[in-house]
Amino acid sequence: MKKSDFIFEVLARKGKARAGIFHTPHGPIPTPVFAPVGTQATVKSLTPAQLQEAGASLILSNTYHLFLRPGDELIASLGGLHQFMAWQQPILTDSGGYQVFSLAQMRKIDDDGVTFKSHIDGSTQRLTPEKSIAIQQNLGADIIMAFDECAEPYDRKYSALAMRRTHVWAERCLLAKKRPDQALFGIVQGGIFPELREQSASFISSLGFAGHAIGGLSVGETKTEMREIIDQVTDVLPEDKPRYLMGLGTPADIITGVERGIDIFDCVLPTRLARHHAAMTSTGRLNLMNATFTRDEQPIDAVCSCYTCQNFSRAYLRHLISAREMLAASLLSIHNIHTLICTINTLREAILIDGTPQKSTTTTRHS
Amino acid sequence: MKKSDFIFEVLARKGKARAGIFHTPHGPIPTPVFAPVGTQATVKSLTPAQLQEAGASLILSNTYHLFLRPGDELIASLGGLHQFMAWQQPILTDSGGYQVFSLAQMRKIDDDGVTFKSHIDGSTQRLTPEKSIAIQQNLGADIIMAFDECAEPYDRKYSALAMRRTHVWAERCLLAKKRPDQALFGIVQGGIFPELREQSASFISSLGFAGHAIGGLSVGETKTEMREIIDQVTDVLPEDKPRYLMGLGTPADIITGVERGIDIFDCVLPTRLARHHAAMTSTGRLNLMNATFTRDEQPIDAVCSCYTCQNFSRAYLRHLISAREMLAASLLSIHNIHTLICTINTLREAILIDGTPQKSTTTTRHS
Repeated sequence: MKKSDFIFEVLARKGKARAGIFHTPHGPIPTPVFAPVGTQATVKSLTPAQLQEAGASLILSNTYHLFLRPGDELIASLGGLHQFMAWQQPILTDSGGYQVFSLAQMRKIDDDGVTFKSHIDGSTQRLTPEKSIAIQQNLGADIIMAFDECAEPYDRKYSALAMRRTHVWAERCLLAKKRPDQALFGIVQGGIFPELREQSASFISSLGFAGHAIGGLSVGETKTEMREIIDQVTDVLPEDKPRYLMGLGTPADIITGVERGIDIFDCVLPTRLARHHAAMTSTGRLNLMNATFTRDEQPIDAVCSCYTCQNFSRAYLRHLISAREMLAASLLSIHNIHTLICTINTLREAILIDGTPQKSTTTTRHS
Repeated sequence: MKKSDFIFEVLARKGKARAGIFHTPHGPIPTPVFAPVGTQATVKSLTPAQLQEAGASLILSNTYHLFLRPGDELIASLGGLHQFMAWQQPILTDSGGYQVFSLAQMRKIDDDGVTFKSHIDGSTQRLTPEKSIAIQQNLGADIIMAFDECAEPYDRKYSALAMRRTHVWAERCLLAKKRPDQALFGIVQGGIFPELREQSASFISSLGFAGHAIGGLSVGETKTEMREIIDQVTDVLPEDKPRYLMGLGTPADIITGVERGIDIFDCVLPTRLARHHAAMTSTGRLNLMNATFTRDEQPIDAVCSCYTCQNFSRAYLRHLISAREMLAASLLSIHNIHTLICTINTLREAILIDGTPQKSTTTTRHS
């Protein structure tokens, strides 16, 4: 495969759901896929070897954080993000937009970009579409994201304004992007307003991105609203390019998304829950700090094949948590990530087995 | 091998130094050996798989800590310490004596044992020789230690008293010990006083322990005093049983000990340094928080073959430390443990190559 080729193969479809492979310069990503989040160039508490063993094939890292520390130019000078963090499989970076908008009082948005104060040292910083792409080119992820504006979901006026800016910025990102070994995805915005979402999906789809994302969800809307938006947007997005549902990743969200034709998910949930002593299981969440588990010799989840469940009892994990041992977070992160990846792999298998095989695979090349 | 057999093979000698194998129910320990410390049934921040990959063949765990939390009976009910922490290779437990004596104001010693306040909840607890052995039998380590009293090294009167108590307690420990699949080691005390150390070494050696340890070092004495004590005690201890230098493990200590015929070392240093951002290298210590390393693309140590050095730059480690990421402690622990184990393995190789092979290996069986 040439470095400039990002081929998206759809292998089977079942309803709107699809199973495929997205080929990247750092190898194939079987889709649908769940990407663990490595905000600061590390999926918290895990080595790349542990992450790979847990089943990860794609990870996400945050442009905002890496721009501020250690700096994208430093990472570029050390060979890029893959080499820096020793993860040789595909990486996706977000645009920094969502993090910057989350700073609330600490940022000012204008039509050209966003000025904000660093959460690390209070210094004044600025991101524009061109700057976001330049940073992401320095980082060198396989999948990079257009710089967008994420609005309050229920504010129609602001949602419309943010959407229009997102569209202008999308075009500027496409112009700014130079590296042929990166696939740039556009982001659909529009809050909870069907006509805005439709307009945004149509416009973003028309620009020739290598893939499309649904942004601005999980910021306060109801699950029903979320499902309707995903349904509506995926009806508009082209079939032959991968679709990414940004920041959502409970087991329920993954099922909702896959059923509606989403291919890529990311979420901090598995590692964040792990640091708060919670395990995701096939029958719900367990908080392993609970005294119930003091003498429990069972693994977290009897049906789980992860390193943690193959080796350790709930009683041992509870002991590590009580004793404030760092290993607790690592072992729970391994389990939670593995659980989410297994959930999505099961859905993928079901689509491949029960779905309609795609005779001539739909492929697209981008540069 | 029957479970009751602990065979110590001396393969080669060079001066007082020896290279051998100590066979245990959980497999052979090549000696001299460095044991990383897993105080609370975990070598901090590492999985057993990472520990094994770093080269560990023996680990130490602390009776005092496990007695208080989660409790030795709980560990026994879950199959013992090996199963609890998923470490299937040999384990050594200390007697709890050293930790209890370190509590200073919070403990009271009498001829029968020690009453102390738990550092966790302030509850009153008691350890006696019999209780220490009972706890260690519940934990189920391969090598267990006699309950001893560690005195201030320069107080002759107290050193003599503590030594006499240690001798009486040693006999009580031998009587209390029942499990044939555990090797009980006696501990030589006597502060910095040559006549006490000699007396202690002779007496402890006469009792028929499976191995012998030098206790009460690294508590304030000079390096010269330490070397003299090791020399003196190893001159008295029998050749055909393993010798353990408790709590010492800088590279210099290891060289000092191996040259004088020590077979087993343990120390918290590699993991403690790791949590304080320091790396042990072939040319000294590096503090990776130092700004010098911001753009340093070299591994911690160019001659090191550990997972950390094979995959990560000093710049990446510095970034993890600056960003307060837990992975920093794991990666530095892997490196430091691997470095100490390589140091001792190099010494072992040198003894095997340059030393005098032992025609008929000296073996001893204990039950």
